[in-house]
Amino acid sequence: MSDTRLGIRLWIEGDAGTLMSSGRMRLLALIDELGSLNKAAKELGMSYRRAWGRIQETEQRLGDPIVVRKRGRKGYELTQFGLDLLESWGEYQKDVSAYAGKRADEMLPWSVRLKKRGEK
Amino acid sequence: MSDTRLGIRLWIEGDAGTLMSSGRMRLLALIDELGSLNKAAKELGMSYRRAWGRIQETEQRLGDPIVVRKRGRKGYELTQFGLDLLESWGEYQKDVSAYAGKRADEMLPWSVRLKKRGEK
Repeated sequence: MSDTRLGIRLWIEGDAGTLMSSGRMRLLALIDELGSLNKAAKELGMSYRRAWGRIQETEQRLGDPIVVRKRGRKGYELTQFGLDLLESWGEYQKDVSAYAGKRADEMLPWSVRLKKRGEK
Repeated sequence: MSDTRLGIRLWIEGDAGTLMSSGRMRLLALIDELGSLNKAAKELGMSYRRAWGRIQETEQRLGDPIVVRKRGRKGYELTQFGLDLLESWGEYQKDVSAYAGKRADEMLPWSVRLKKRGEK
């Protein structure tokens, strides 16, 4: 057991579906990075339609747009609300992951390291 | 958004596969409760073969048996090692979940409650 990793997945759901999840935030981060919903979906091995559906679901549940077409150019970018969401979720996930790693070492009979983002 | 729930899944993996996960611990808890691997698998909508395969994988990775045939009777029960594992993982998961719920309220723009065990 030379390399033992701790995985963690977090999500928030309401009665009508998922509001936010680690996977959905990864999609937003990729849109922000690549400036394209199509490229972001491809990167995750997801269809455009599915990626778009997930973003719409989150927007409807939160009541505010999180992505918007770039003015005068092709592609999409995050709204300020989307950027804020990405930042706060990223900080939240990092905070909970660090705690989970620390407590695993204290409470479980293995020593673990945290999985890196995007690591298989 | 009257009922917003926080979901969390934790697992530990090595190079050769999963050592432990929330789902696998649920299987152990059901074997402990029902005294039967078959009934525990059914409760989770899982085939006997699949449930048995997961337990074997964890046993191989940890190097100790976690379930054992009941002496002189039908069915399975947890070994002392299995019981210890169930208890420590249960405490670990509860601890990290409580922290994740507290931090969600502090860091995210929603108020959430933790999902109950087994809640859909």
